[in-house]
Amino acid sequence: MYLTMNRFKVAPGEAEAFEALWKTRDSHLKSVPGFVQFSLLKGPEAGDHVLYASHTIWESEAAFKDWTKSEAFRAAHSGAKGSDHMYLGAPVLECFDAVQVLSK
Amino acid sequence: MYLTMNRFKVAPGEAEAFEALWKTRDSHLKSVPGFVQFSLLKGPEAGDHVLYASHTIWESEAAFKDWTKSEAFRAAHSGAKGSDHMYLGAPVLECFDAVQVLSK
Repeated sequence: MYLTMNRFKVAPGEAEAFEALWKTRDSHLKSVPGFVQFSLLKGPEAGDHVLYASHTIWESEAAFKDWTKSEAFRAAHSGAKGSDHMYLGAPVLECFDAVQVLSK
Repeated sequence: MYLTMNRFKVAPGEAEAFEALWKTRDSHLKSVPGFVQFSLLKGPEAGDHVLYASHTIWESEAAFKDWTKSEAFRAAHSGAKGSDHMYLGAPVLECFDAVQVLSK
């Protein structure tokens, strides 16, 4: 299992618009080979921002890399234009490999 | 869906021992009410550390809070004694509420 995480520091006044942006976009992910699950997560509020994280789970690193070169990737990100004012700094992408997974 | 994330900065020479510690412990999580899934994830290597994240998914925030007060929580953490030297700084816990989940 391979997980890519983007962390967004969102200005408190923009949190509602940020969530709406994600809920109304068409991510095109369901048709992407090797895609497993996407979650948008709302984290703790700090003084000047609300932390959000997007987690995307892939079958493999190769599936993620192929997606970044695809038309589906371009289409998924075209809706993000004009949203820069929502963030404090650029989103930070981190990629993780599963060492251990334990399910109920 | 509720997700608790711990982020660990592990000294590069301790990464193997850190992974072994997790793989050999008995987390007692499978019997905990409201537990859904646990993952230990290996992230990017920086100059002085390797980033690891543990993600635990719960049915609700209440399930997580109940677990932190339980005997299972105490038992799961008793094995962590003596591992402080593996980390650069204390692990950072962040809690997230799912805004959107999309599965294949």
